[in-house]
Amino acid sequence: MKTRVLEAADLTHLLEAVGRHELMDLMIERLGARFLDHEADAVEVRARDGFRYDKPDLGLVEWMPTHEKGGPVVIKMVGYHPTNPVQRGLPSVIATSSMWDTVTGHLVAIADATLLTALRTGAASGLATELLAKEGPIVVGLAGLGAQAVTQLHAISRVREVDQVIGFDSDPEVAATFIDRVGFLGLDVHVGGPERAATIMGDVDVLCTCTSVDIGAGPVIVDGKTRPWLHVNAVGADFPGKVELPSSFSNRAFVVPDTLEQCLLEGECQQVSSDQIGPALSDLMQRRDEFIGHRQQITVFDSTGWAVEDDVALRLAVELAREHGIGTDIAIERLPQNPYDPYGRS
Amino acid sequence: MKTRVLEAADLTHLLEAVGRHELMDLMIERLGARFLDHEADAVEVRARDGFRYDKPDLGLVEWMPTHEKGGPVVIKMVGYHPTNPVQRGLPSVIATSSMWDTVTGHLVAIADATLLTALRTGAASGLATELLAKEGPIVVGLAGLGAQAVTQLHAISRVREVDQVIGFDSDPEVAATFIDRVGFLGLDVHVGGPERAATIMGDVDVLCTCTSVDIGAGPVIVDGKTRPWLHVNAVGADFPGKVELPSSFSNRAFVVPDTLEQCLLEGECQQVSSDQIGPALSDLMQRRDEFIGHRQQITVFDSTGWAVEDDVALRLAVELAREHGIGTDIAIERLPQNPYDPYGRS
Repeated sequence: MKTRVLEAADLTHLLEAVGRHELMDLMIERLGARFLDHEADAVEVRARDGFRYDKPDLGLVEWMPTHEKGGPVVIKMVGYHPTNPVQRGLPSVIATSSMWDTVTGHLVAIADATLLTALRTGAASGLATELLAKEGPIVVGLAGLGAQAVTQLHAISRVREVDQVIGFDSDPEVAATFIDRVGFLGLDVHVGGPERAATIMGDVDVLCTCTSVDIGAGPVIVDGKTRPWLHVNAVGADFPGKVELPSSFSNRAFVVPDTLEQCLLEGECQQVSSDQIGPALSDLMQRRDEFIGHRQQITVFDSTGWAVEDDVALRLAVELAREHGIGTDIAIERLPQNPYDPYGRS
Repeated sequence: MKTRVLEAADLTHLLEAVGRHELMDLMIERLGARFLDHEADAVEVRARDGFRYDKPDLGLVEWMPTHEKGGPVVIKMVGYHPTNPVQRGLPSVIATSSMWDTVTGHLVAIADATLLTALRTGAASGLATELLAKEGPIVVGLAGLGAQAVTQLHAISRVREVDQVIGFDSDPEVAATFIDRVGFLGLDVHVGGPERAATIMGDVDVLCTCTSVDIGAGPVIVDGKTRPWLHVNAVGADFPGKVELPSSFSNRAFVVPDTLEQCLLEGECQQVSSDQIGPALSDLMQRRDEFIGHRQQITVFDSTGWAVEDDVALRLAVELAREHGIGTDIAIERLPQNPYDPYGRS
């Protein structure tokens, strides 16, 4: 039995073969279909768990397991090492996803998930924006201009006409390359300095917060007067004590978690009173008529990263790789001809 | 950055290059060294967790994470599907182990762990037998003659002179091939039918129970008069409700867990009163002088499978593979040249 391996170069190849826009559109479509179908009883998700350490630098390796009944088991493994970009020229998030068949226990596929994570996080914000943001054209704000900002903006541009983009980053070197990195979107992008933290909220229709703010160091933007329909995709908070939004703001918004339990532990919901927290995004999508009116209100999508999204992303990547003949099949597991003979010929 | 992949064929190659006896001796040596060095404070082990299901057949996919401070994170993924051998000609246990660097979060290695699991489970019983069994020559009993029985007997034969082997299995087809499968050991092996369950305990110096008994269907052997120094390696119990030994027997033995918490949940310790449960095997080895006298008593090593053993096994396999130039290096993780550009060139 073979395992389909999607290496780094395979993902690049897939990106070129499918096209960035088509890939993002497919990710939004598949994620949307899964959210619309989602039944809590049919999916098991284990709370994200991991090993955290502070030597030589702060970091963690964590696992996000999920199992849709009758489907495969999918686990994403994530390394989060915030000093990677500056110290080592590596992304802060490095991830792989793996899929197991639940008939035999066979490892069906393993793939880079660094790109897939950025894509699915973008796609989730795309879905939230489509449902909750004012209709286009819109002005988009970005707090934090790292890797996630690219796919946040990309996904939003696939669900709304974008008139203008205003972004800032605390690191001028990161800010300096942003316009180039999102050049493929052909948008009107303005990059400011950290002082934009004080004003950005009032100038945009949709805001994405996607920073690597330290635990306890948030919020990353200053509360102030906003447009009455401001929608925020809060993407960066993913650890106890880590938040990006001022609580005075999120407590006057309608807050939509990706998955409530995790958001209460690691997301903006940590600092939001329970009467401001609405149903999860998948519930909202299933009851669209009931919530479409929220486009006129202040809303926050609290996106901590749901294992179900990684399941969707890996399945889509494996499916597209098969279609395009991309990837390698290797026999990782040693399966002796006589299953009772561990030393026997395989 | 490359990931070292040890495929099925690589493990076969490693087995041939190193030699079965040398590989088992090294596994026993490394596991012993790690147990002697073990400090609970310096190792994090997460409780084994997984998804369990009963369609189309009973099965589970589980993960066993561990992290030695300052060292890598190692996770073994295990598929356990007891109908695999009969229904699909596959081993009931299919496993892979992976290792992450804790500086960058990079996936350092992934390897088949089906063979490694059999080896480390054998090696752990080898260490327990060396410490707690009567000095050789000994008669070894085996309840269950599947894959684990091969490495149990192999490991024991590396720490004691074996005079005779008596084994049985409830499945005659499994029993029929056992003598052939352990032919490389050159031992005097006798295979009986299921009726041996009633008598085997009295006829041996060391007994290994390594069956796939169903949850709630144990014990697999009948209590009776034993030699006063009988040592049992109880290997098969690894799930709540699953036990192999009659509780009347284990409650008159000195029971040594591999890792207490897990043994209380899944091992023979489920049915052993706390005053019969001694320190863990690693503690015993660190206090050898204090416990060497137990060779004259009835002892049970309750081996549920400890994540630390998988860490040792994977590190040894990766080290030997490097030494012998075995395995392939592939760039799984997509690391763009600009870490802030998920779509960028890698």
